[in-house]
Amino acid sequence: MSEPKLSALPPSGMRDLLPGQVDIRERAVARILEVYRSFGFVRIETPALESLRLLLQSDGGENEKLIYKILKRGEKLAAASPEDLADLGLRFDLTVPLARYYANNHAQLPHPFRAIQIGPVWRAERAQKGRFRQFTQCDIDIIGGASNVAEIELIAATAEALRRLGLAGRMTVRINDRRILGGLLAHCGFPQAQSASVFIALDKLDKIGRAAIEQELGRHGHPRESIARLFGLLEEGGRDLSAWRRTLGRDVDGDVWGGLEQIIVAVRAQAAAEDTIEFDPTLVRGMGYYTGPIFEITHARYASSVAGGGRYDDMISKFTGHPVPATGFSIGFERIISILEEGHALERPPEAKHAVLVERAEAALAAAATRARAWRASGQIVVLEEKSPRVGKQLFDLAQQGFTAATVIDASGTETDLTEELMKKSERLTAERGS
Amino acid sequence: MSEPKLSALPPSGMRDLLPGQVDIRERAVARILEVYRSFGFVRIETPALESLRLLLQSDGGENEKLIYKILKRGEKLAAASPEDLADLGLRFDLTVPLARYYANNHAQLPHPFRAIQIGPVWRAERAQKGRFRQFTQCDIDIIGGASNVAEIELIAATAEALRRLGLAGRMTVRINDRRILGGLLAHCGFPQAQSASVFIALDKLDKIGRAAIEQELGRHGHPRESIARLFGLLEEGGRDLSAWRRTLGRDVDGDVWGGLEQIIVAVRAQAAAEDTIEFDPTLVRGMGYYTGPIFEITHARYASSVAGGGRYDDMISKFTGHPVPATGFSIGFERIISILEEGHALERPPEAKHAVLVERAEAALAAAATRARAWRASGQIVVLEEKSPRVGKQLFDLAQQGFTAATVIDASGTETDLTEELMKKSERLTAERGS
Repeated sequence: MSEPKLSALPPSGMRDLLPGQVDIRERAVARILEVYRSFGFVRIETPALESLRLLLQSDGGENEKLIYKILKRGEKLAAASPEDLADLGLRFDLTVPLARYYANNHAQLPHPFRAIQIGPVWRAERAQKGRFRQFTQCDIDIIGGASNVAEIELIAATAEALRRLGLAGRMTVRINDRRILGGLLAHCGFPQAQSASVFIALDKLDKIGRAAIEQELGRHGHPRESIARLFGLLEEGGRDLSAWRRTLGRDVDGDVWGGLEQIIVAVRAQAAAEDTIEFDPTLVRGMGYYTGPIFEITHARYASSVAGGGRYDDMISKFTGHPVPATGFSIGFERIISILEEGHALERPPEAKHAVLVERAEAALAAAATRARAWRASGQIVVLEEKSPRVGKQLFDLAQQGFTAATVIDASGTETDLTEELMKKSERLTAERGS
Repeated sequence: MSEPKLSALPPSGMRDLLPGQVDIRERAVARILEVYRSFGFVRIETPALESLRLLLQSDGGENEKLIYKILKRGEKLAAASPEDLADLGLRFDLTVPLARYYANNHAQLPHPFRAIQIGPVWRAERAQKGRFRQFTQCDIDIIGGASNVAEIELIAATAEALRRLGLAGRMTVRINDRRILGGLLAHCGFPQAQSASVFIALDKLDKIGRAAIEQELGRHGHPRESIARLFGLLEEGGRDLSAWRRTLGRDVDGDVWGGLEQIIVAVRAQAAAEDTIEFDPTLVRGMGYYTGPIFEITHARYASSVAGGGRYDDMISKFTGHPVPATGFSIGFERIISILEEGHALERPPEAKHAVLVERAEAALAAAATRARAWRASGQIVVLEEKSPRVGKQLFDLAQQGFTAATVIDASGTETDLTEELMKKSERLTAERGS
């Protein structure tokens, strides 16, 4: 070839997945699906691309700035703005497309609708270690369920899925409600119109600490006294729901407290003894679209949360024109996979892998094909390869790949079992690795 | 909301998949994977986005014109050409990304490497019924296998997967070789430099017929005499490999014939009695990158082919700088799914679906959560719902969704079994549907 070589690297911030990585992901997905299906959820799929207009009106917060936009076809390129050049974008989450999906298909869906979505999303994030521009999300949502039974089911299902993934023991479910946060801000004297910017700042409390948040709120012009009162309450208020109810009094509707209490009681009834289920008034969650209960699951062994979600009753009305209640819970799939890859891998059944080394002659090929078919039917993984002149090297390579049996079929169609030789190579390999 | 309603439709040419559709696709994928794994193939994944430079140098034929391009971020929009505005594109097939993947990761992969890829690809096709702009491809490839054993394994695995999908009986495997096609063109007096354009025209023979192809070749300036000789041979030559070998003589290397014969014999040895495996000198395949044997599977019941593939020994060298043999076979996944949806659906095990209708009180919720957990552990699908004041209507809806058991848990935590009532609704529903 005279052309210069092409780069073999994937685009910046994106990944090639090796067979072992795909294997872990598939096993994780299978376990998650098994649990979610036992809760009556069913899987759906939406396209990777959505209209830009939709993606940009979704209250997706910071994520809207990270949308990959698709160049319109045959468009005049002297256009003035990116909006004129693109009308489609890659989805940045699975919740916004689900709202559109439900509005489009609700007549054919059960009521309430329990959806599973597992699929890739794209965000043009600044490239950095451990953060990818294409990654998998794994969500369940209940649409059309106004009662808190929806939250109870979502939390129970997600906690059970995490247990089945090997994260049992010392999970903490943290629960709050956007309406309590709203009441808290009102109680501290923040004007209601500004609560969105306070939520965005508060959401970073774990990461950047109180002082930085206070500065940020000050810069946004929030009253010093309100800021001080807010942090005073958050730091001294503890996690006792009844105490908070007394503190905030009529700034929060009574039903909100009752609902949250019901969720906590029912989730506790299903939880394992080591798990903690607690009210957490500092929990905010980043998305702009939440309207009611919000929740997160953390695990004692891992720093960041492993699942998060909440109620978003106002999103679907953007399509339908009338309100449709909705709640969702998302497992941090890539987080879970990196935990599994760090050594908590899911157990795999042992495999019988049989290599058939065949000489290139019609009798041999026909005989090998017939034998391979029979062995596969008996449950073995069978691979046909041309017999190499250096069969010792070939057996060594097969041992390295975990083969457990080998057969040679020569030009006359005669079989010779080489499993013993293969096993010797395996033993040598094990000894070498051990030393 | 004061804003105008957003459209709930997916982008033009793209689809929302309903739960039943996803279910069929998942079952099909599970069966295909089971077969491919028994042949020693392992699954890999590449990102949806690739560099445009790579996608545009891939010999992908017409598909290169259909690439969705991603708008560069923060780029000056007064740029002169689409190339300046975009440097990434959505993949249009899985073969081009696989070549890059192999070059990038071969040190960590077994040799030869047997890859499974199942995933979405995107093409900005003219929108029309049954053709989608995002669709799933399902490929297996053997990389690093120069011997025809690779073709034999790919064809055997693909035919077996199709059988497991319910397409057993009257499959036809058609086999040809790009080097025989090349020899045929030379034999008829076409200059070698022009063979690519003759391949592209010939590939449409089934669709537009001989007369249209002759016109097209004439318009491209090919000699009338060569065109007439080519069609004469194709129409009178039949499908006998030995006869064609005598006709084309030294225009095709002897090894090519021998290799093709070996493939045919070995595939026949594994085929079912009703299957046909035949040499087809009219088989061309559209892609520009094929270099050796090419093959397709058709089924007597369906018009278009259900799988296609071939050898592409020159593609990976674009990344590595040295030749790497490679062969692939792709199942027409969307074609298969539409066949399954037309009524050949894969059988499903019956499901025990239990609805727990709960009153909104702490005792009820806690009792329901505990019972639901136990029933799920026993293998039932269990759904918690708030008990409706119109429980008869609620049971009717549940019967419609295929529920097989129902329990009410009242505010005191007391259980009442409503399965008999649910079954009556089911019977009424069956009677109504039958009438």
